Amino acid sequence: MSHPEALRINGGRLLDRLDRLARIGRCEDGSCRRLALTDEDRAGRDLVAGWMRELGLEVQVDRIGNIFGLRPGLEPGPPVMTGSHIDTVATGGKYDGNYGVLAGLELVQTLNEAGVATRRPLAVAVFTNEEGVRFQPDMLGSLVHAGGLELAAALAIRATDGPALGAELERIGYAGTLAPGTIVPHAFVELHIEQGPILDLEGGALGAVGDLQGISWQEITVEGVANHAGTTPMRLRQDAGYGAARIACQVRDLARELGGMQVATVGSLRLQPGLINVIPREAVLTVDLRNTDDRLLAEAERRLAAFLEQLAGAEGLAISSRRLARFEPVVFDRSVVEVIEAAAAALGQPIRPMTSGAGQDAQMLARLCPAAMIFVPSIGGISHNPAERTSPGHLELGANVLLQTLLRLAR
Amino acid sequence: MSHPEALRINGGRLLDRLDRLARIGRCEDGSCRRLALTDEDRAGRDLVAGWMRELGLEVQVDRIGNIFGLRPGLEPGPPVMTGSHIDTVATGGKYDGNYGVLAGLELVQTLNEAGVATRRPLAVAVFTNEEGVRFQPDMLGSLVHAGGLELAAALAIRATDGPALGAELERIGYAGTLAPGTIVPHAFVELHIEQGPILDLEGGALGAVGDLQGISWQEITVEGVANHAGTTPMRLRQDAGYGAARIACQVRDLARELGGMQVATVGSLRLQPGLINVIPREAVLTVDLRNTDDRLLAEAERRLAAFLEQLAGAEGLAISSRRLARFEPVVFDRSVVEVIEAAAAALGQPIRPMTSGAGQDAQMLARLCPAAMIFVPSIGGISHNPAERTSPGHLELGANVLLQTLLRLAR
Repeated sequence: MSHPEALRINGGRLLDRLDRLARIGRCEDGSCRRLALTDEDRAGRDLVAGWMRELGLEVQVDRIGNIFGLRPGLEPGPPVMTGSHIDTVATGGKYDGNYGVLAGLELVQTLNEAGVATRRPLAVAVFTNEEGVRFQPDMLGSLVHAGGLELAAALAIRATDGPALGAELERIGYAGTLAPGTIVPHAFVELHIEQGPILDLEGGALGAVGDLQGISWQEITVEGVANHAGTTPMRLRQDAGYGAARIACQVRDLARELGGMQVATVGSLRLQPGLINVIPREAVLTVDLRNTDDRLLAEAERRLAAFLEQLAGAEGLAISSRRLARFEPVVFDRSVVEVIEAAAAALGQPIRPMTSGAGQDAQMLARLCPAAMIFVPSIGGISHNPAERTSPGHLELGANVLLQTLLRLAR
Repeated sequence: MSHPEALRINGGRLLDRLDRLARIGRCEDGSCRRLALTDEDRAGRDLVAGWMRELGLEVQVDRIGNIFGLRPGLEPGPPVMTGSHIDTVATGGKYDGNYGVLAGLELVQTLNEAGVATRRPLAVAVFTNEEGVRFQPDMLGSLVHAGGLELAAALAIRATDGPALGAELERIGYAGTLAPGTIVPHAFVELHIEQGPILDLEGGALGAVGDLQGISWQEITVEGVANHAGTTPMRLRQDAGYGAARIACQVRDLARELGGMQVATVGSLRLQPGLINVIPREAVLTVDLRNTDDRLLAEAERRLAAFLEQLAGAEGLAISSRRLARFEPVVFDRSVVEVIEAAAAALGQPIRPMTSGAGQDAQMLARLCPAAMIFVPSIGGISHNPAERTSPGHLELGANVLLQTLLRLAR
């Protein structure tokens, strides 16, 4: 039996599993399309659950379809858990989620082959519907696991293409029997690609993720009066499109004024009737505000609301806003982050503290147990795209940091 | 035989013809849908051409489908022509175009019943595809009549739903034999609803239209980089949606800076991929600039182009622009405008000089002969909408001003 600190995962084997999983639902443009609880998701689940069994893991499926592969420890008790998701967006990359799950399997195989037993049990989890494309909300499986959404309510959610989540779970054979939340980990560590440009720009350190941005999503509807673009004098216009443009500029200004970690995005904007020679009657746009500091996030929301009121008065528009999502920032467990940092240091691998700008299963697990995340660089920051890439070296490094982190947590 | 200056049209009969024509292609929401050269357009043409024949007019159809109803004068020679169009937009009102044509028929009937002959012949014209919804460009029939577009090229234009214009003319039985441009009027006067709010806001004077705005249409494509709305720091963004919003704000500022008759509109704006949590990769927007002064219109275009260049540099965006249409302003014939003003004055009807902000068949006819227009108020300025309305009193007044104008021109 090797000394655990000398153990290294097999990078080629990890890449091979990533490739094999990415073949399921592969599209012509090279993207992966395995929307939650579709036939492609079933095929991906079957492949991963089969690998779990081959590795001797005890596979448990809960009633929301989360899959847990359990490896006994020398002592009974709550497992040290890692994991992520294997569902994808419509044009997904091969690493988002999948990397965290398959790195978990790879480190189990590494431990198995070295004959290393840990004091605490280990677990590798696959959470249902993290992406939130076919069923809303996103991070649904981990949310139900953490008690943030009732099982019955979750099973009744309808897919964008019609069927209920519960019926789809039955159909693909992943309506398990375990009650969600049964397995409360000792600690949870999720390994994930950054999906942003920071690590890549800074030359390839890994990231020890200490917190996660709070998210405020709203949909704003601007109502004006449609009129002829030629015959309506400027002073008589109630132009919903102009109102929307002003809001989009203000959203950028807000982020500039608040500075720090504040980000702000208008990703969707639609005009009605949307004709070249008609002043828009209606504009519907979305605003995505994120900050790690909930007080500042609320301040951004307040400033935007005040601007909308002032704009409506000045331009003769009716402006309403509907909240689509609101998540408070998450601060991960400091001691778990320190274990990650120590594990990286022992490997001689630079690691920097960072914030997750994306929602992650780990934020749901953080409600149940000490949790944190490890990020590896995304080349060009690109994700949710067939061009999503992380260098093989970084994929291997991240998995080794995860291995050493779990070994320390499972001692 | 009555004294011609005492003649008045029959308002009830005019309203009745407007109602009967509006029944063809009527939709559930009360709008009219008679897109050019569809079965509905054919039914409308059949109705109007039938009325022309009932009134003793000689009906001529030219090779682009324009219909002319000719009433002989005491002397041969070029006719004094009025007319407009009877095609509609997808959700058209009952007055746009139709009013000008049917007022022409009504005044012919008034002259017939009073036994009034004019020195010059009269003509009532129905021009093909004014709206430009199913076939581009708009004002196509009058453009071909005026020699601004070759017949063969016009017949080859494809409908948005596929077939060629020439084939559709044959199909509906309106591919006539007259060469376009054969009938060169002595003068042309078009009676039309304003399609804007000015006359209505000012209390109901009519409008003697002395000029028509120049139009500049362009489509601007902004290309940035799609990225995660949470993980991409503000300073690293190349946000095509933000670029588009800045352009839309600048377009408004341009109109404010240039003042006067300058109007500027962003009517269409689309983002890709258009997701709440993705920084837009691409934005495509339209800009509609209009001015009666071509020098100022060109200045607006120059300032916008300079702004696009500066914005592209500052925001790391690729911005390109494609011209969709460019019409120089039209100055109508001063002597025809004076005849309109004199005719209104003789009726005791207030009339004010004004500018057409919309494109009109009269602008094409102005290439061939002295031409001008008469506007009646549009309630609330609403047009291209089932709520398009003009009071019965104004409809009658406008037709009487047209009658007296044509009588003076035909003397």
